[in-house]
Amino acid sequence: MGLEIERKFLVDHLPAALAELTGSAIRQGYIIVAEGGVELRIRQKQARFFQTIKAGEGLSRTEIEIELSQGQFQQLWPHTEGRRVSKTRYTVPVGDHTAELDAFAGELTGLFLVEVEFPSESASRHFSPPDWFGAEVTEDRRYKNKQLAVYGIPTT
Amino acid sequence: MGLEIERKFLVDHLPAALAELTGSAIRQGYIIVAEGGVELRIRQKQARFFQTIKAGEGLSRTEIEIELSQGQFQQLWPHTEGRRVSKTRYTVPVGDHTAELDAFAGELTGLFLVEVEFPSESASRHFSPPDWFGAEVTEDRRYKNKQLAVYGIPTT
Repeated sequence: MGLEIERKFLVDHLPAALAELTGSAIRQGYIIVAEGGVELRIRQKQARFFQTIKAGEGLSRTEIEIELSQGQFQQLWPHTEGRRVSKTRYTVPVGDHTAELDAFAGELTGLFLVEVEFPSESASRHFSPPDWFGAEVTEDRRYKNKQLAVYGIPTT
Repeated sequence: MGLEIERKFLVDHLPAALAELTGSAIRQGYIIVAEGGVELRIRQKQARFFQTIKAGEGLSRTEIEIELSQGQFQQLWPHTEGRRVSKTRYTVPVGDHTAELDAFAGELTGLFLVEVEFPSESASRHFSPPDWFGAEVTEDRRYKNKQLAVYGIPTT
């Protein structure tokens, strides 16, 4: 069972490196979004399909991921109606780390978020965000994909 | 999305027909058991594997089921530790209906439960249980498999 330690930021301006990168098309939807951070998400990333079970919240949370067949994904997708996000994900090197920059599409067009995953909480605390990163939103629930899927871009 | 209407009973005595029947070995475990009746269950039935997502409670509840590969099941099974049930299921004709009689194993040995599924709430209300059925426990949460998996056989 993986333990994810990641920090999430708004984007102040898009990094120059982005022009050289090819993004991955991602669509994801939530079948379950329950109290206590429990969620069941399915995701299509290019031509591959995944199911992720999450439990717990904040800096440390637990994830279980399995790969799905296209047929399994197609059976589950209708049950995510009204709780979906589409985005293009770019993988951007940031010092010793790798950032995932998400350019949202559909009703979330105009929103960009960047996430960095760390091997330890110590590494997470010592990370210096580059100048193109904006405000940190790791603890801001409104920027969780499941919240964005249901409520759209935060207005304040 | 299927809508299940079923009634569940204790077993007063085992039906004579049981001696003629072959049961199916079932083992199942719960990855998520959350508030509001949300659950994520995986099940092995003979040589086939399934994942079922449930939401809602009582006489009517919603289920989404997909078949899993053995590999997917094996990835998920460790995450059901401490929330598992093993049983043998017998399919027993009861008038116009079909009952599923579960003989529990492991720590639940000695417990038997029988369930009947109905095409409508009206059919459910008009069902007359045969003499081998015991008390109805449809609304008794302690006899839900997920409760049995965690708490064992009810003691009162």
